[in-house]
Amino acid sequence: MDSGPMLRRMQAVLQREMVREFLAEFMSTYVMMVFGLGSVAHMVLGDKKFGSYLGVNLGFGFGVAMGVHVAGGISGAHMNAAVTFSNCALGRMPWKKFPVYVLGQFLGSFSAAASTYLLFYRAIDQFSGGELLVTGPTSTANIFATYLPEHMTLWWGFLDEVFLTGMLQLCIFAITDKRNSPALKGTEALVIGVLVCVIGISLGMNSGYAINPSRDLPPRFFTFIAGWGQQVFRAGDNWWWVPVVAPLLGAYLGGIVYLPQGEIKNTR
Amino acid sequence: MDSGPMLRRMQAVLQREMVREFLAEFMSTYVMMVFGLGSVAHMVLGDKKFGSYLGVNLGFGFGVAMGVHVAGGISGAHMNAAVTFSNCALGRMPWKKFPVYVLGQFLGSFSAAASTYLLFYRAIDQFSGGELLVTGPTSTANIFATYLPEHMTLWWGFLDEVFLTGMLQLCIFAITDKRNSPALKGTEALVIGVLVCVIGISLGMNSGYAINPSRDLPPRFFTFIAGWGQQVFRAGDNWWWVPVVAPLLGAYLGGIVYLPQGEIKNTR
Amino acid sequence: MDSGPMLRRMQAVLQREMVREFLAEFMSTYVMMVFGLGSVAHMVLGDKKFGSYLGVNLGFGFGVAMGVHVAGGISGAHMNAAVTFSNCALGRMPWKKFPVYVLGQFLGSFSAAASTYLLFYRAIDQFSGGELLVTGPTSTANIFATYLPEHMTLWWGFLDEVFLTGMLQLCIFAITDKRNSPALKGTEALVIGVLVCVIGISLGMNSGYAINPSRDLPPRFFTFIAGWGQQVFRAGDNWWWVPVVAPLLGAYLGGIVYLPQGEIKNTR
Amino acid sequence: MDSGPMLRRMQAVLQREMVREFLAEFMSTYVMMVFGLGSVAHMVLGDKKFGSYLGVNLGFGFGVAMGVHVAGGISGAHMNAAVTFSNCALGRMPWKKFPVYVLGQFLGSFSAAASTYLLFYRAIDQFSGGELLVTGPTSTANIFATYLPEHMTLWWGFLDEVFLTGMLQLCIFAITDKRNSPALKGTEALVIGVLVCVIGISLGMNSGYAINPSRDLPPRFFTFIAGWGQQVFRAGDNWWWVPVVAPLLGAYLGGIVYLPQGEIKNTR
Repeated sequence: MDSGPMLRRMQAVLQREMVREFLAEFMSTYVMMVFGLGSVAHMVLGDKKFGSYLGVNLGFGFGVAMGVHVAGGISGAHMNAAVTFSNCALGRMPWKKFPVYVLGQFLGSFSAAASTYLLFYRAIDQFSGGELLVTGPTSTANIFATYLPEHMTLWWGFLDEVFLTGMLQLCIFAITDKRNSPALKGTEALVIGVLVCVIGISLGMNSGYAINPSRDLPPRFFTFIAGWGQQVFRAGDNWWWVPVVAPLLGAYLGGIVYLPQGEIKNTR
Repeated sequence: MDSGPMLRRMQAVLQREMVREFLAEFMSTYVMMVFGLGSVAHMVLGDKKFGSYLGVNLGFGFGVAMGVHVAGGISGAHMNAAVTFSNCALGRMPWKKFPVYVLGQFLGSFSAAASTYLLFYRAIDQFSGGELLVTGPTSTANIFATYLPEHMTLWWGFLDEVFLTGMLQLCIFAITDKRNSPALKGTEALVIGVLVCVIGISLGMNSGYAINPSRDLPPRFFTFIAGWGQQVFRAGDNWWWVPVVAPLLGAYLGGIVYLPQGEIKNTR
Repeated sequence: MDSGPMLRRMQAVLQREMVREFLAEFMSTYVMMVFGLGSVAHMVLGDKKFGSYLGVNLGFGFGVAMGVHVAGGISGAHMNAAVTFSNCALGRMPWKKFPVYVLGQFLGSFSAAASTYLLFYRAIDQFSGGELLVTGPTSTANIFATYLPEHMTLWWGFLDEVFLTGMLQLCIFAITDKRNSPALKGTEALVIGVLVCVIGISLGMNSGYAINPSRDLPPRFFTFIAGWGQQVFRAGDNWWWVPVVAPLLGAYLGGIVYLPQGEIKNTR
Repeated sequence: MDSGPMLRRMQAVLQREMVREFLAEFMSTYVMMVFGLGSVAHMVLGDKKFGSYLGVNLGFGFGVAMGVHVAGGISGAHMNAAVTFSNCALGRMPWKKFPVYVLGQFLGSFSAAASTYLLFYRAIDQFSGGELLVTGPTSTANIFATYLPEHMTLWWGFLDEVFLTGMLQLCIFAITDKRNSPALKGTEALVIGVLVCVIGISLGMNSGYAINPSRDLPPRFFTFIAGWGQQVFRAGDNWWWVPVVAPLLGAYLGGIVYLPQGEIKNTR
């Protein structure tokens, strides 16, 4: 049989595409997260002079926009395991790509957390007095991951994350839906950035709006090994798993609500 | 006669189109209102850390932009009974669609108010001390509907709402007027969002800029049944009917001022 | 001769075009000024809750963007006597249109000042305690026209207005220059709005950045007759004429600096 | 040989192109820097009423956007010696253009510093009490150039500038990469402006984010000769050379990280 070389060649191509998609998710998530975490660092460390909650909304929003430019043409620039999950679950992408995408996102996000720590090392050191705390007025773990606000309970927070990620996925599908009223090609990056910005402005205060496992878990893991300790997982009634699980459910539900039932099946 | 089946078929198509338009108005209004009301909740409940009046302007502005993406290609994404009214009154849309559109908007807006209450339940509870008040420093009814500011009287407020809705309708017609200087196709959502944003920034403080019956009445009704009581209708000299009636008049006048008389008649 | 009817007909057409341009300048200037003056009213009257200097920058910037949509396809939406002046002086428009444009702008701006007074009548009354003052902590004349800041002198202010209007005209020519790197058609309105916004953010504090006779003189005249009195012209060492004269010179210089000498002559 | 005249003619053309590119870099850098430095002046001199750190982010961001419109079609509007350096080093532009570009940028930036000083002369005089200081609460040198924040050390600052300029160059390449997910033609100016804005919002507080020798050195030299003295070079452990050298390295590294190795070689 002479199909062997051809098969191997196709596999090689496929693998190369997977490598490109892995790198695309890595780089776009890295870019988004450096801008996002940096803006939180400005709010936490900037003594009300350099940062604010609006700054965080803009930092993550415009960070997402830049991420879309960095990888949109290669992998679609999900930068979000929940978005990747709902694309697979709704039949718009094969499941076998899921681990490749998520691995790229997680490594990119972890690297961004490490970079942010490096860049703000001196500021964190001065602000915290050298103590890496998870709670209290000089806590700095909240630069990297979200923590349950005091006025909330775990399950209200779970509901919140489901709902917000649903809004995110629903609007992303709308913004890119050629049969409806999509953003002009070449401006989607900005419009999706505006979407992430307004989610923060309008709905962020109840859970810190992770709405993305890739945004929350890897930086939390970074703080765990970088010296903040086990408290980063224990705080808020073991809050850590909510921004990982709830967004998956939310993105799936948001996708189902937006997409006509027909399309979900047909494009599978 | 064999026209019976064909007639029934066409009616079925028509009804399906109406259902689609109903759902489109429902969903776009829901999305807009969740972002809009959420941003007000941030201003009221966020202890000056998470929200501000500018945040509300951005929340409603960008919320409108997202709503346009969600339904612009199906129903035109009015999300506003006054805009629907002026489109019908100026002959750009048949009157029979009016109740369909407005019902979709009202149910979407009511659902958004309920969702906002759910999402911010804990924050409202803590801020208000458990008492759902319409006036005073811990009032929370203003998260959902507009109330007449203290420096105003009912009829100045009426004039204000007429004027602001007129500006809204006039500029929407301009932004989408192909024979003038329209926003590029695929960017109208963002530009209309900027319009709603600047109306708030520049003209919002005298009446709370409802400029939209669908934005104001259903959430007010929600607060009525959710525990805030009759005061939501009585406050401000029975202010509640002004954001319902004045915008209808305003949108009609704004449309007349912008549209050349000829076009109004010809497209009827 | 039978050229009479044809001549009269052409004159009629011409006059109709002039009427359209007059109305276009009237309406676009009105829209811009209502948003602009309203945003200043929010800063002055809003008790730091509803307005800020950034709000003013956004109000005038986005107001200009809306004005461009309202009249860009008819008159070019100058909304600024200095821009009209430089277009005539640089041979891009016949001088005979100058009075038509400026009259439209002045009447639009005056009407916008009157509308703003009406809309904010109650807020002005409460803030000022009923006294319409030009100077002091409860002055309200600054809602309508610019006044020389205390740290400035008349001639530094003159220089400032020349320079700022020069930047405005230079950048407008660049943004719309098809042979360079223009804003995409259908997005110019927004980009020119961003330009006006950044002029305020970066260069506005030394003269109040009128950069436009049509923005400053008619509202000042309105305050003169509405009860603020002669002081509106006398304040700041008779500052009133600077925002009228300096922008003309500035726009002309800015235009000359940008345009290649050749183009200025050829298109005359 | 009759190739002499033709050769001379081509040289003349080439020189004219160089002159045009020189002027383009001069003018675009001038425009960007006037808006950028002006926004810093508002923050420093504006008594918290007219300026803020967010204002500086917007001033430089939108200033860059205007600069791209002013010269994008002629020289590419680098406005940044590090970007010019990385374009040459990566084979996208001949080295012989480097001094032409940088000279234009430096002279434009120096002129912008002089213009800013002139425009804000009275405000600087009043704020500083007539003393031109580099450190302390009434220092004004920071209007023109960046200074190492107290919580930083020289080499952390060096690393910071390398990293930030790398992010800048990487994202610029992505935004303009036709084979990926580029910004729509005619909107790149705005998107690159958003990029510069978010770099400031998210990553600016550790070094003042010069990320550009042409932004920092010429204005610093201006302050040196205008009366602030040698301290402008000595402050912060002789900080002045870091924003000159580190961005060159950063832009080169950022470019290498983004560009596929193949493209770098092929387009040489």
